[in-house]
Amino acid sequence: MQSVVRLYPPAYDIRVEQIPIPKLEHPDDAIVEVKLAGLCGSDLHPYRGTVEGLTEPSVCGHEFIGEVTALGTHFHPGATGRPNLYATLKVGDKVVSPFTVSCGECHHCRIGFTSRCVESRLFGTPHTPGGQAQYVRVPHAGGTLYNLQGISTASVGPDEETKETIGKLADSSLLLLCDILPTGVFAAFQALNHPKTLPMLTSRPYPQSSGGALLESVAVPLKGEDKVLTIAIVGLGPVGVCACIALLDMLYARDIEFRIVAIDPTEIRRKKVEAIYARISQAYGKQQNGHLEVSDITASKEIVTKWTQGIGCNSVLEIVGNTSALSLAYELVRPFGCITSVGVHAARPVPYTGQQLYDKNVSMDFGRCPVRAMFPMALDLLLRRQDVFGEVGGETSLVEKIVGFDVAAKTYDDFDKGRCGKVLFDPWK
Amino acid sequence: MQSVVRLYPPAYDIRVEQIPIPKLEHPDDAIVEVKLAGLCGSDLHPYRGTVEGLTEPSVCGHEFIGEVTALGTHFHPGATGRPNLYATLKVGDKVVSPFTVSCGECHHCRIGFTSRCVESRLFGTPHTPGGQAQYVRVPHAGGTLYNLQGISTASVGPDEETKETIGKLADSSLLLLCDILPTGVFAAFQALNHPKTLPMLTSRPYPQSSGGALLESVAVPLKGEDKVLTIAIVGLGPVGVCACIALLDMLYARDIEFRIVAIDPTEIRRKKVEAIYARISQAYGKQQNGHLEVSDITASKEIVTKWTQGIGCNSVLEIVGNTSALSLAYELVRPFGCITSVGVHAARPVPYTGQQLYDKNVSMDFGRCPVRAMFPMALDLLLRRQDVFGEVGGETSLVEKIVGFDVAAKTYDDFDKGRCGKVLFDPWK
Repeated sequence: MQSVVRLYPPAYDIRVEQIPIPKLEHPDDAIVEVKLAGLCGSDLHPYRGTVEGLTEPSVCGHEFIGEVTALGTHFHPGATGRPNLYATLKVGDKVVSPFTVSCGECHHCRIGFTSRCVESRLFGTPHTPGGQAQYVRVPHAGGTLYNLQGISTASVGPDEETKETIGKLADSSLLLLCDILPTGVFAAFQALNHPKTLPMLTSRPYPQSSGGALLESVAVPLKGEDKVLTIAIVGLGPVGVCACIALLDMLYARDIEFRIVAIDPTEIRRKKVEAIYARISQAYGKQQNGHLEVSDITASKEIVTKWTQGIGCNSVLEIVGNTSALSLAYELVRPFGCITSVGVHAARPVPYTGQQLYDKNVSMDFGRCPVRAMFPMALDLLLRRQDVFGEVGGETSLVEKIVGFDVAAKTYDDFDKGRCGKVLFDPWK
Repeated sequence: MQSVVRLYPPAYDIRVEQIPIPKLEHPDDAIVEVKLAGLCGSDLHPYRGTVEGLTEPSVCGHEFIGEVTALGTHFHPGATGRPNLYATLKVGDKVVSPFTVSCGECHHCRIGFTSRCVESRLFGTPHTPGGQAQYVRVPHAGGTLYNLQGISTASVGPDEETKETIGKLADSSLLLLCDILPTGVFAAFQALNHPKTLPMLTSRPYPQSSGGALLESVAVPLKGEDKVLTIAIVGLGPVGVCACIALLDMLYARDIEFRIVAIDPTEIRRKKVEAIYARISQAYGKQQNGHLEVSDITASKEIVTKWTQGIGCNSVLEIVGNTSALSLAYELVRPFGCITSVGVHAARPVPYTGQQLYDKNVSMDFGRCPVRAMFPMALDLLLRRQDVFGEVGGETSLVEKIVGFDVAAKTYDDFDKGRCGKVLFDPWK
């Protein structure tokens, strides 16, 4: 038997229970002994009873790291007919799991769009018991789990030195790889890699074609002010903070001049981002070529107007996932700007008319982070920014505390009511 | 005095009238003697009385080509304080005008996002008389007009041979550069240059970073079928046909395997696209590596399902500009696919919920083509594809006929009721 945190429908009913340890059910399965499990903002959707059709109790949580304790027959040496993916795990390996299952083999997985795998299943739902447990069964483990020991195919593994560095990372730091850190990196990556952002980064006007253009389209060269990126981050919860760190890291690395307004109605969240910005900009020292300001919602519009003479932001990162965040994003974005939305949205109409989108030439990228594909970029950032990711409970840390299952019900309640930040569970505490 | 076509509100009242020839009003102005003026689908919005706030009569039309007959003092030799832009025009030059005014100097113009110029004005409205006239006053002519004789700065002009070729193009062919051809090129360019399309073009999985990634994210290599682009074009009016030609040209040039479904409820439009596809694919001969099929709306869903085993299109080009076209685009697009919308939309809600966009990871690009910036790419295509663009009245031609102002009222009525295709006016006929 094992201890797990279970949610009983319709809502707010968290129980710690003893249930059997999961067994291998399919040749692609792995069993993982959980070291740490996260409590994430999106765990609150089923907790509050807002997920339709949820009638059975489920083991909670979609963020977990741990160690492989058993593997299906497809992983056994000599197993035939399986791709390299299944030579990547052995018992004892330390692994991180994305918050969704991905087979690693379908069209979407091959392309890197792993969050839309045809076998995609969200951990922490009735059919896929979650990570707030001592043991988890991981379906399609070869495609899903990310092996921190590196994998056997040399071309795709980290080198020995990197492996050693990874080995030294705290579990609380690695846990961020399950969801919030890759999602933040995804948001920042989408914002900076959109073709509409390219002219600002390359000093060449739109459109940039690989060939075929007869003439330069525009005769007046770009000015310095054209190349300053103005970016808004809407929502400074844990994913917003990660997006902020990823964005700063990418901008500093490419020496791009920037102005970021980081927006949240909650002062405590704004303070954290200010502290993180101070730390990161200090670490970069004189190289820095930009400016971050935190703001509440109302002031953010004035700030962007002042910075850009009313033109608006090049990019808006929408991390909240509701209608008012989308409306604010539209207000803040400039003509030919991009809205990158990684927030989880409900079945409510998008608050835009076709004319509004036409009149501002808005580009938008919506949807769930392909965590499995973003892992390398996120791990790279995690390794380089241990000054902010490595701490628990500090002024700049993303994790507030690590608790045992004994306080699970109270922790859900506190988290739901905004009385605490990000909390991790140690199932063995 | 001159002859012009004027629309009287509230609707359907087209009159040919004699009004004074426009004069220079500002040092940046040019007066253009119109050679040909187009009748465009979006002229039907004011004609039908669906444009709010239109109370005064206006000279119609936003597509025109002609010859410069007068220039404001900013163009005079020795004028100071003006950018190179104003050294680009002289009396007698043959010019094409985009359908909107752009100053060429503001932030948006410098970036190449000319359709959102701070001085943007649409020709054919009460404050900016249009091209269905013998003479047009062009504000901000240095930024707006595209000089087919090339411009004085050597680095941005075409070479002598190209100029000669351009000189031989029929006016009816050049007229396409005002709106529909660049808009089609813009739609195709956006579809193929989106970061979510990149893995299919490069055979490397998403995300593709310029550095920083520790490990390959996905271990299973892309298969041949992953690299086949499946694209839908929704709407086969003149812009849809141009998008189709641009797309085929780009795909053939880059040797990308493709499947295109070109969708319209009207059989005559589908037949035209079929004929154009036959001509272009024949011209490319053995190099071709793709397949285009025309379809009505219902069958298009079955075709895409069959082609992609239910996965959907990589890109959907939405050229219509209404709610049902946007709904169809969502149905057809695959997870992590892109919808490129160049249709002119009314103030109706976008027919998507946040959850639908999240669940499919949809990317979208909306808005008006920056015609002035797309000119070089469009002109390049026009020169190379005279086999389809060069004809008037043929099976594959985009222009059905050229008429005089004497039949303007009847022509608007025929065009409104779908009794004719694209018609051009010769104001001197």
